[in-house]
Amino acid sequence: MTSDRTVDLGFARLDVDRAARTGTPEVVYAAGKTPAQTVACLAGLLEGGAGSAWATRVDGDTATAIRDRWPDAVIDEEARCAVVGALPEPVGEVLVLTAGTSDGPVAAEVAATLAACGVGCRRVDDVGVAGVHRVLAVAPDLAAADAVVVVAGMDGALPSVVAGLTDRLVVAVPTSVGYGAAFGGLAALLTMLTACAPGVLVVNIDNGFGAGVAAARIARSAQR
Amino acid sequence: MTSDRTVDLGFARLDVDRAARTGTPEVVYAAGKTPAQTVACLAGLLEGGAGSAWATRVDGDTATAIRDRWPDAVIDEEARCAVVGALPEPVGEVLVLTAGTSDGPVAAEVAATLAACGVGCRRVDDVGVAGVHRVLAVAPDLAAADAVVVVAGMDGALPSVVAGLTDRLVVAVPTSVGYGAAFGGLAALLTMLTACAPGVLVVNIDNGFGAGVAAARIARSAQR
Amino acid sequence: MTSDRTVDLGFARLDVDRAARTGTPEVVYAAGKTPAQTVACLAGLLEGGAGSAWATRVDGDTATAIRDRWPDAVIDEEARCAVVGALPEPVGEVLVLTAGTSDGPVAAEVAATLAACGVGCRRVDDVGVAGVHRVLAVAPDLAAADAVVVVAGMDGALPSVVAGLTDRLVVAVPTSVGYGAAFGGLAALLTMLTACAPGVLVVNIDNGFGAGVAAARIARSAQR
Amino acid sequence: MTSDRTVDLGFARLDVDRAARTGTPEVVYAAGKTPAQTVACLAGLLEGGAGSAWATRVDGDTATAIRDRWPDAVIDEEARCAVVGALPEPVGEVLVLTAGTSDGPVAAEVAATLAACGVGCRRVDDVGVAGVHRVLAVAPDLAAADAVVVVAGMDGALPSVVAGLTDRLVVAVPTSVGYGAAFGGLAALLTMLTACAPGVLVVNIDNGFGAGVAAARIARSAQR
Amino acid sequence: MTSDRTVDLGFARLDVDRAARTGTPEVVYAAGKTPAQTVACLAGLLEGGAGSAWATRVDGDTATAIRDRWPDAVIDEEARCAVVGALPEPVGEVLVLTAGTSDGPVAAEVAATLAACGVGCRRVDDVGVAGVHRVLAVAPDLAAADAVVVVAGMDGALPSVVAGLTDRLVVAVPTSVGYGAAFGGLAALLTMLTACAPGVLVVNIDNGFGAGVAAARIARSAQR
Amino acid sequence: MTSDRTVDLGFARLDVDRAARTGTPEVVYAAGKTPAQTVACLAGLLEGGAGSAWATRVDGDTATAIRDRWPDAVIDEEARCAVVGALPEPVGEVLVLTAGTSDGPVAAEVAATLAACGVGCRRVDDVGVAGVHRVLAVAPDLAAADAVVVVAGMDGALPSVVAGLTDRLVVAVPTSVGYGAAFGGLAALLTMLTACAPGVLVVNIDNGFGAGVAAARIARSAQR
Amino acid sequence: MTSDRTVDLGFARLDVDRAARTGTPEVVYAAGKTPAQTVACLAGLLEGGAGSAWATRVDGDTATAIRDRWPDAVIDEEARCAVVGALPEPVGEVLVLTAGTSDGPVAAEVAATLAACGVGCRRVDDVGVAGVHRVLAVAPDLAAADAVVVVAGMDGALPSVVAGLTDRLVVAVPTSVGYGAAFGGLAALLTMLTACAPGVLVVNIDNGFGAGVAAARIARSAQR
Amino acid sequence: MTSDRTVDLGFARLDVDRAARTGTPEVVYAAGKTPAQTVACLAGLLEGGAGSAWATRVDGDTATAIRDRWPDAVIDEEARCAVVGALPEPVGEVLVLTAGTSDGPVAAEVAATLAACGVGCRRVDDVGVAGVHRVLAVAPDLAAADAVVVVAGMDGALPSVVAGLTDRLVVAVPTSVGYGAAFGGLAALLTMLTACAPGVLVVNIDNGFGAGVAAARIARSAQR
Repeated sequence: MTSDRTVDLGFARLDVDRAARTGTPEVVYAAGKTPAQTVACLAGLLEGGAGSAWATRVDGDTATAIRDRWPDAVIDEEARCAVVGALPEPVGEVLVLTAGTSDGPVAAEVAATLAACGVGCRRVDDVGVAGVHRVLAVAPDLAAADAVVVVAGMDGALPSVVAGLTDRLVVAVPTSVGYGAAFGGLAALLTMLTACAPGVLVVNIDNGFGAGVAAARIARSAQR
Repeated sequence: MTSDRTVDLGFARLDVDRAARTGTPEVVYAAGKTPAQTVACLAGLLEGGAGSAWATRVDGDTATAIRDRWPDAVIDEEARCAVVGALPEPVGEVLVLTAGTSDGPVAAEVAATLAACGVGCRRVDDVGVAGVHRVLAVAPDLAAADAVVVVAGMDGALPSVVAGLTDRLVVAVPTSVGYGAAFGGLAALLTMLTACAPGVLVVNIDNGFGAGVAAARIARSAQR
Repeated sequence: MTSDRTVDLGFARLDVDRAARTGTPEVVYAAGKTPAQTVACLAGLLEGGAGSAWATRVDGDTATAIRDRWPDAVIDEEARCAVVGALPEPVGEVLVLTAGTSDGPVAAEVAATLAACGVGCRRVDDVGVAGVHRVLAVAPDLAAADAVVVVAGMDGALPSVVAGLTDRLVVAVPTSVGYGAAFGGLAALLTMLTACAPGVLVVNIDNGFGAGVAAARIARSAQR
Repeated sequence: MTSDRTVDLGFARLDVDRAARTGTPEVVYAAGKTPAQTVACLAGLLEGGAGSAWATRVDGDTATAIRDRWPDAVIDEEARCAVVGALPEPVGEVLVLTAGTSDGPVAAEVAATLAACGVGCRRVDDVGVAGVHRVLAVAPDLAAADAVVVVAGMDGALPSVVAGLTDRLVVAVPTSVGYGAAFGGLAALLTMLTACAPGVLVVNIDNGFGAGVAAARIARSAQR
Repeated sequence: MTSDRTVDLGFARLDVDRAARTGTPEVVYAAGKTPAQTVACLAGLLEGGAGSAWATRVDGDTATAIRDRWPDAVIDEEARCAVVGALPEPVGEVLVLTAGTSDGPVAAEVAATLAACGVGCRRVDDVGVAGVHRVLAVAPDLAAADAVVVVAGMDGALPSVVAGLTDRLVVAVPTSVGYGAAFGGLAALLTMLTACAPGVLVVNIDNGFGAGVAAARIARSAQR
Repeated sequence: MTSDRTVDLGFARLDVDRAARTGTPEVVYAAGKTPAQTVACLAGLLEGGAGSAWATRVDGDTATAIRDRWPDAVIDEEARCAVVGALPEPVGEVLVLTAGTSDGPVAAEVAATLAACGVGCRRVDDVGVAGVHRVLAVAPDLAAADAVVVVAGMDGALPSVVAGLTDRLVVAVPTSVGYGAAFGGLAALLTMLTACAPGVLVVNIDNGFGAGVAAARIARSAQR
Repeated sequence: MTSDRTVDLGFARLDVDRAARTGTPEVVYAAGKTPAQTVACLAGLLEGGAGSAWATRVDGDTATAIRDRWPDAVIDEEARCAVVGALPEPVGEVLVLTAGTSDGPVAAEVAATLAACGVGCRRVDDVGVAGVHRVLAVAPDLAAADAVVVVAGMDGALPSVVAGLTDRLVVAVPTSVGYGAAFGGLAALLTMLTACAPGVLVVNIDNGFGAGVAAARIARSAQR
Repeated sequence: MTSDRTVDLGFARLDVDRAARTGTPEVVYAAGKTPAQTVACLAGLLEGGAGSAWATRVDGDTATAIRDRWPDAVIDEEARCAVVGALPEPVGEVLVLTAGTSDGPVAAEVAATLAACGVGCRRVDDVGVAGVHRVLAVAPDLAAADAVVVVAGMDGALPSVVAGLTDRLVVAVPTSVGYGAAFGGLAALLTMLTACAPGVLVVNIDNGFGAGVAAARIARSAQR
């Protein structure tokens, strides 16, 4: 089957047909890789025929190595993402909400992922449930979106409230924001998994990338 | 000091002056006691001078044993509480909210405790955040209350929203309602401990008794 | 706003306009309710104007009480669901996979939920990764589906493999099947949250209802 | 409703009427925010009409940025709190007890919060239960207080003993002081949640801010 | 070496010289054994030369089987212990305290173990820290004892207070008494392990047997 | 590929060529299946060409159903296993040790699995480390075995000691024997995973089946 | 009562009569205190009449501050302990065993504590159960000791084996040595709490101080 | 017995006959030892008669100290292992698979261990199940190997798939690669323990050394 080609770098075997199979290209998870390994993976994906290549969890050294190789790479420091090559034209719109300003970097990873997937993004920050009128104020945005991503740490209560206000799917991202009984995002994760409103789907703690890919698939499907 | 008298039953040493010291009489926790032990404790407290005596976590056999001894005991089956002797006249009012119908027994324990402490209670059930307008609808009740007790299982998100709507203290009671990642009330407990709104204080899972005592103290203090 | 009407039963406040707001009607969670309470909630929803009403986690006594009231209620014993009133005509198709036969009751709850939401369902059981050719054999089904629900206990590895084969969203449902280090579904839950393939979204352990609602929304959106 | 105004800074939406609604102004949680973001939030709150504005979890860089902008800001380094603007005149008195010297910074956050809320504070440190006569020695202070805050790490046993000595509400703050089976404050948290004396209400680990807000509300209510 | 003899019953290999090596005979842990297996183990120990033999965690069926075989066996139902043969004459005295009446069965296992080990026991029940004067009242008993065993569930705070009042070793036994955040004794276990007073040593949850053996060794050593 | 045939029963898809691929036939995990489903699976495997078929976690009803269908089925009640068809002639020998009598049922599952896999078994029970001479006494058995399976609950310390005495691989099976801090086998599991001697490999709690399969593979390989 | 004197330093209230009450002087826990606070506490204890004063968890800065104030202070860097004043003449002997070299610092804290308490210490390192003959080789030392302290990380199996070889009490100290499933000492802690041999008493992870105090009390009692 | 010789270094007691007893020499675990201690242990093993000596978890300072003493030591920086002396000639072959590039250092420790044990190694990296054709592509390698080691973090799903494709034993090594709900390798550990395919045996998180020793034993046994 042609959709099973692999590029073998020794330390990595790139799944260059993943986009053909799954609609999402293989993405380089840079944590735990040396800068040189990340650069080699990106190069391998481009040589394998991808129009663009993309890395997440990019630290400072890796960002430098990427820019050294591709001076026009787009590097989003807040999101810790890097894209090499042309971004697709965005279609549709995903609404990205954060419960607090400290959830910003994870929301930035969602936004960067949506951009890389060719989906539009509208972001509204700091709509925590402690001022529930701020949540009610985004109701028009909910109605206009193809999907909603809710990013929240601490009590992680925002998705429960949002899902009760909309018929859009809510992709909930717990963050590691908080201290003590937040247990590094565990509290928010459990809250979201037990949300009393249906229509809430959950990804890993701080996994803005996974939420972005999922929301992009929903949006693209709604735009078809 | 006269406030340190103890009645020794062998298997129990009743702290008969606790009401004088702490404003709340010693209450018999019937779980893990035989019906005979619970009856003996209640009798000891009455003989020690208490006007009324009171037990929580009362199962069927214990309820029968209590009624055999004191035919006019007030036994609240939903709350699993029993009171022997005259209840005080209620003062003030505590608002007790539940997120769902299944949280009812714990709310009943709160209400029974408030009655035993001589404080009025207004209870509104099933105001979960999945229909946030139901929460907003209780705003007038919040303003009229001396304190608010919020009882919620599953995601435990209700106290975060309520605390953002009122200047009353919110006593949050996580319940063991739910399954899977609710982990017997752990999810709701962590949510409440990390509530993004200040003014939320938390008691043990399913601890309607503790919430009732605390709310009663707040109400009595406000009525002074 | 007309979409905020509530029917107050005392022990419950039914959110009768939830379907209008969120596309999914309020569903009665029967666990922790008495049979009489569940029947009253269903009746209240019907009286509130719903064409059909629906309960999950229905045990034997509750099923009997429902059938006593509505002799033509549809009760799915494997799924522990009951529906009163006419089911909508199904549109689209969701593929529901189980890793093993023991995951069947949760998959049945997914299927019953899809039926109640008016979405078609194709179910293939026992495609565990220990015989990965069984997974590869469902590739044509994946391509034909609007969304995929994967139900798996024990190691919970199936969603990771499926998500690598399709561009459909994968809604992963961990189940409490297993023993020892399965920790009541925790192992499968963590596996799914950390799935190495993007496009996996997770619901609570054994939450076939939540997965069904989410998959129905995706399917309906794709059919629009 | 006038109590729902929001100031939109892009990365934050300040809830400037929270004090009107809840009696406690919105407070800036500086952890996870850049110094510039914290300064902007404080400025926004002041511009929104607040007489004073206040931040918690303030690190060194943020403290410097605040003082650069408002040279007369009050910065409490032990408490890691900053206040800009005039503090209210204190009324009433809350007794703040620590079990050990190492619990000092959390107690300092309680004290700073009480000051910001306009409530008086009396602090007695190092009254651990290993020398229970030290606890008995504070009995007169208990009787004079409007509420009691007990700050304790390690075994977290102090609130159980204190609550048996007073009719005041005890707000218990577990701290992350300790090692090994203290598990970052989890041991103390569980101890406090299961305290055998009623009248103990619990906040998150190290959450001196939350305890201070709650105690201030009790004190102000008692002074009314 | 003569202290290494083993009696082989097939399903069990009895360590008949353990008393010679360790001062404590092998004791039959009846949980998970059939009544017939427990009886056979007791018989094997007696035939191996022991003056008496002893089983813990004895349920009703096993108790009946033991009494059928040895009509004069001493069976303590509260402690779920059985002893066959003559008990030694007691020397010394261990003080056994419980925090509450519900901790009684575990204290009974401590007492039965002390009796089997030939050490005297004085038991005072229900001296919880919520009435700390009850703890202070046992100070003379503390001074008279060779060792102290403290049995407590829920918050497990009693050993911390007792250890601050005595120079005797405190053997702390957490119990599974409690609910919610007591987590089956985990809360009490962690409290005891992090006790702020030195001189507290801990055994497993509900392990009255282990506490009794340890206290007996201390008492016998002090009496030498 | 002929080794990928599947027999589709609707609720199950039997992997009838698994033995050809992996050396171990598909085994029916009866927990969570109805007796009829288990019987159908066994029948399907036999019809698919297997010489024998085999189920684990067989309860009483399922055992009856199996015997009704195949009167000469071999059902091991202690092991909760059933085999239909002829057992292979055993080769080689695996030594199975238990730390205590209560670990017997898990060891029985190991032994039944070895028999089904055609490998000999020598079982020595109750060689706990509290009488370490009992462990040393099995040294000759260790030298004679092709592999060693060690079954232990509570502290799970036996594999660490055994692995220091032999060059055979030690397959360690933690059991759920114990109470309190044994946490259902978690204590033994962690002990075995952190064993200070290399050569210890671990399976799931109570997983006698998995240990038996693994030990059989080692033994058959050594006998080749 | 003269045994209840307190020296009030503001940030600390020194319990100067604790030695009179409990046989062990108050010890300064330096973690979480500034160097100046630790020095002030030591000075306060000496001024309160103690012949010597003592601190644990002493880091480099605190050690320097202590030596600046008392040039002849004894500072044990491995144990992170400091003693000011004359050490008592040692009596009796406690045997301190470690399972591995990496457990050394905790064993050093045990030894330093014994020295401060006036009890002799014999230390044998690296007698892990993977070479069980090394454990058997210390049998004569066991017989000569007044008590045994066993320090072990990773699997924590050593106390189970030692307690089967001696009639001395075994004080078990789990350490945070290890990685992965050792979970910072949790594995060893659970192993020790569930030790299959009676006579094992457990202290907190890495708590050499607590083990030393307890062993000293046993030894002094045996020497009386 | 000659196989029980010990070399006593004071801080360590080297088990120099472990290779004779167990087939694997004592290996120095350098974490928690000073560089000088590690060097002394290696020297002691060589002086005790070992042809080579070997350390794991070697950091930079320790590596330098080893090379200073033995300039021709083989130090593998990725694996953090050091070997002094001649490596044995390799026999047989173990296949080592990683799920991702970030698992490389643990796989390197497996490979270094195999080399030290005299067993051949074939390593294929980055065959994660998200591209399951990459797994299927290694089928010929599986058939050629004496044993398989699978190294995987995050969801840890690879061993379940591999074990369904081979009759070789699969030694599964969970790694700490991942974030959030990966919980430092716990997710992968639980996945592997609950793998739905038999023939999977598990070692501690990141324990490449243990996996290597076990695989080497299997390979050597198969080559005999």
